[in-house]
Amino acid sequence: MSDNLPSSGPRTSLTLLGTGAMGTALGRAWLAAGHPLTVWNRTPERTAALTAEGAVAADSAAAAVAANRLVVACLLDDASVGAALEGADLAGRDLVNLTTGTPADARARAAWAAERGARLLDGGIMAVPPMIGAPGAFVFYSGDPELFEEHRDTLAVPAGTEYVGADAGLAALHDVALLTGMYGMFAGITSAFALMREADVAPKDFAPLLVHWLNAMAGQAHGMADRLTTGDYTSDVVSNLAMQVAGTDTLLRTAGEQGVSPELITPFFDLMQRRLADGHGTEDTTGLVELLSTRRPAGAR
Amino acid sequence: MSDNLPSSGPRTSLTLLGTGAMGTALGRAWLAAGHPLTVWNRTPERTAALTAEGAVAADSAAAAVAANRLVVACLLDDASVGAALEGADLAGRDLVNLTTGTPADARARAAWAAERGARLLDGGIMAVPPMIGAPGAFVFYSGDPELFEEHRDTLAVPAGTEYVGADAGLAALHDVALLTGMYGMFAGITSAFALMREADVAPKDFAPLLVHWLNAMAGQAHGMADRLTTGDYTSDVVSNLAMQVAGTDTLLRTAGEQGVSPELITPFFDLMQRRLADGHGTEDTTGLVELLSTRRPAGAR
Repeated sequence: MSDNLPSSGPRTSLTLLGTGAMGTALGRAWLAAGHPLTVWNRTPERTAALTAEGAVAADSAAAAVAANRLVVACLLDDASVGAALEGADLAGRDLVNLTTGTPADARARAAWAAERGARLLDGGIMAVPPMIGAPGAFVFYSGDPELFEEHRDTLAVPAGTEYVGADAGLAALHDVALLTGMYGMFAGITSAFALMREADVAPKDFAPLLVHWLNAMAGQAHGMADRLTTGDYTSDVVSNLAMQVAGTDTLLRTAGEQGVSPELITPFFDLMQRRLADGHGTEDTTGLVELLSTRRPAGAR
Repeated sequence: MSDNLPSSGPRTSLTLLGTGAMGTALGRAWLAAGHPLTVWNRTPERTAALTAEGAVAADSAAAAVAANRLVVACLLDDASVGAALEGADLAGRDLVNLTTGTPADARARAAWAAERGARLLDGGIMAVPPMIGAPGAFVFYSGDPELFEEHRDTLAVPAGTEYVGADAGLAALHDVALLTGMYGMFAGITSAFALMREADVAPKDFAPLLVHWLNAMAGQAHGMADRLTTGDYTSDVVSNLAMQVAGTDTLLRTAGEQGVSPELITPFFDLMQRRLADGHGTEDTTGLVELLSTRRPAGAR
């Protein structure tokens, strides 16, 4: 994560398309840092919060695009980006697309922008609006590397920047992969709180133990990365897949005793059992990646 | 977590029942710290590693129990504890049961020990054998509080101690809840690596981003604990359940594009959707705990 301080001197002026909760938070950060800002929103009234702080509202998306070389889009979805920019002249424009979408959406939108003479950088925002402008928030960027280098100081104003490659789809892919990891962790946290629910233990006494444990165990991802790189998934600790599968019995029996549905964790246990049945009992859980993915890693092609 | 340094002076002598991988690691730590150790194992040959380091092997579990007041059991399962101690005189003994089991197993074993004149402390080891004796390893303890206080210095030799209450079942419950949380997180990590598998991104470049993100997001458990305590699950950020459910579409479409099965995360998405359908769209995900648990919290009884 980098948090570049903007250099002194005049601030880059830019255009912001979309002033929902996230767009408004972004726009506020740029205005507070002294960046002249032109804004447009499909429902014009929703630009009021930003115009009150000094932004200029454009009458149309085309007029907003004409106002500045740097154009940031933060709209509902990829279709909204196409609709908003349909009549705009994009030639020579630097389009930074922070609209949520899939990697394929981002790649298609980059090709679409190139056909219209614009460079495109796609972004995946790893924050909710109240986090914008505060430490910790960051945005994955991918796509045109020169665009990123030229505008990185401006882009770093609302949130840290993490450039992940020239393939425009990579920012969305990183974004989705991290959110997917998070939802898995939330499923585990939810199940853990459910198990403790009937016990005479205050949730606020249990939470620090759980957070400490999860933070320690998240580091296992580094070892998994090493094993995915070599393709040798042999467990480097005593607790291999065969032993872990045996241990799931205690977890499931405890869920039964506590009146808790194990539905959020049984799919992982089922996958462990499939991998064990395939003869991989001396591995750790890294090999489960192969059961989820129908594709080969890039390095193996 | 506390890591008590043993006080100076003669070390407490103790008995260890069970010298598998974990028992051997524990025994080694006590021997290294100068504690006289009597050991017993159902297969006698497996005590060799510890007797070579100074432990005394007993001919029977009963003889091992007779040798010391403090008796630590680290056996295969709860039934093995009953079988090993069947002929032993437990009167006046302090039994520390580190054998894996459910909360109900631990409570029943505590009652069984009390009938035989012994005090019992149950323990859940939050480590694999190579971690024993190193920082980070710890054991949840629950059961007889006086037993814990009297022996805490000795118990703190192989791993940190975390006493969680007089109810003997609480150590196993904490152990299982943390492991369940961990498996949820591993399901998320596995899915995340699968999503990145085809991309031209080295796993070792992706892992630090994922670990950083998971460590930041694990802290959400503190807010969930607060909301579970008050029973008001209203989201304190803009991204409420309705918005999160809408966002899952991008995650599932991306999985489809990448050829990755979403089977490890769809149960959580399904639960979010059920809660949303029940009219809780302005909550965060805390309320999902209620869908997993058929019981009421202790405080609500």
